[in-house]
Amino acid sequence: MKPADFTDLEIAEKLADAARAAILPYFRRLDLGAENKLDTGFDPVTEADRAAELAMRDILADLRPDDGIHGEEFDEVEGRSGRVWVLDPIDGTRGFISGTPTWGVLIALSDMRGPFLGVVDQPYIGERFVGTPEGAYVTGPLGRQTLATRQGTDLSDAVLFTTFPELGSTAEEAAFRAVSSRVKLTRYGMDCYAYALLAAGLVDLVIEAGLKAVDIQAPIALIEAAGGIVTDWQGGPAHEGGRALAAANPQLHSAALDFLRGV
Amino acid sequence: MKPADFTDLEIAEKLADAARAAILPYFRRLDLGAENKLDTGFDPVTEADRAAELAMRDILADLRPDDGIHGEEFDEVEGRSGRVWVLDPIDGTRGFISGTPTWGVLIALSDMRGPFLGVVDQPYIGERFVGTPEGAYVTGPLGRQTLATRQGTDLSDAVLFTTFPELGSTAEEAAFRAVSSRVKLTRYGMDCYAYALLAAGLVDLVIEAGLKAVDIQAPIALIEAAGGIVTDWQGGPAHEGGRALAAANPQLHSAALDFLRGV
Repeated sequence: MKPADFTDLEIAEKLADAARAAILPYFRRLDLGAENKLDTGFDPVTEADRAAELAMRDILADLRPDDGIHGEEFDEVEGRSGRVWVLDPIDGTRGFISGTPTWGVLIALSDMRGPFLGVVDQPYIGERFVGTPEGAYVTGPLGRQTLATRQGTDLSDAVLFTTFPELGSTAEEAAFRAVSSRVKLTRYGMDCYAYALLAAGLVDLVIEAGLKAVDIQAPIALIEAAGGIVTDWQGGPAHEGGRALAAANPQLHSAALDFLRGV
Repeated sequence: MKPADFTDLEIAEKLADAARAAILPYFRRLDLGAENKLDTGFDPVTEADRAAELAMRDILADLRPDDGIHGEEFDEVEGRSGRVWVLDPIDGTRGFISGTPTWGVLIALSDMRGPFLGVVDQPYIGERFVGTPEGAYVTGPLGRQTLATRQGTDLSDAVLFTTFPELGSTAEEAAFRAVSSRVKLTRYGMDCYAYALLAAGLVDLVIEAGLKAVDIQAPIALIEAAGGIVTDWQGGPAHEGGRALAAANPQLHSAALDFLRGV
């Protein structure tokens, strides 16, 4: 088959398959020998991260040579098509190192308007959340299911996720707590998996700060395909990273934004 | 086969299989119709919880009629053998309701000295952590692996887990933070899964408060079988619930206990 014979979705699935194969041999190995950036900051990286990104870049060089690549681990590839593949081979490296099944492979395809195709893959569970302009679905232990965000939930009944209680500056943390104090349930520690659960209609809000573009582009495309909304804390585009507010529906988005906008 | 033909481990596996089958049809269903205790407190329960405990009780009535049963959802069964099966069909119900794959089925078998057999099962992943007097192992997506806790880690290199940042009283939270401020990494949100990761050598400390006996007995047996230690915050037995400190090795246990003992 020629490169043009593959759809964007097929390419994205190939990337996710390659990342899975590259990463799983490293997961829960006690002799990882990781170059762990934890000691010097808060951006750990493992050999698995690099192996997976290289495997994905090889596929793109072969099958999408005109597209750009923006990845977590290696240099930017300038494209000629106006389209960019945005790759985070292991989002949630601290969770990965701790053995939790909540890290993920993030793959997005973007154009000038932002990401329009997104994959959140959890290799250990064998679970893949996919969003395209045609809709969103998950494949995994329960088979294939269509994804749709939850509608009609008041802020007081909402389930809110973030990864760390200390999510940024003092003002950012205070704004988060203002929302958190008004919802039914706040949970922590899920990394990118929280965005996937929002797309699946099980979580209503995810609020984070200090993100990179590679952390948020796949969740944006996934959640928008499932009917949700992702913006920054001013209601503008979030795909360059920084602060993100993901909401299951416009009413919740607006209600949460009221507490975040002033920061 | 007669009841006596089954080993305790075989019975425990049957219980875990039955709980999986009872619970999975309810997981990630958007029409759960749960009797959600969240609105009135912090002890949610679902129909899945009850279905799984009834399925396990049926097996015990049939195959271990002389043993006692202490379960989360239904009345105590007095036994005649001096042995008690301690059952929490869904530990981490708030995680369950949110769709996270970090809740678990907890099964322990105890005698007067405490739990000596423990199972932490994650039905969605298809993963089962087992501890017996003969050792500890996990079966799941990566096959079967022997479990052993991590040795030789200093407190400053330790990975610490708890489920909520607000883990109890102000004094309890302050004591937790004293330990947290001295470790390399603190993570949240894993429910019983954190204890399983400690048994697997990937997490070094788990500190919680406000536990019930059914929450901690299976983790105790699992972790002790893998070489770790679980006590209360004074260094005494933790199997009646309350506060728990789980540690990968005696040195870490002692180092953490120094900050908790005064509470």
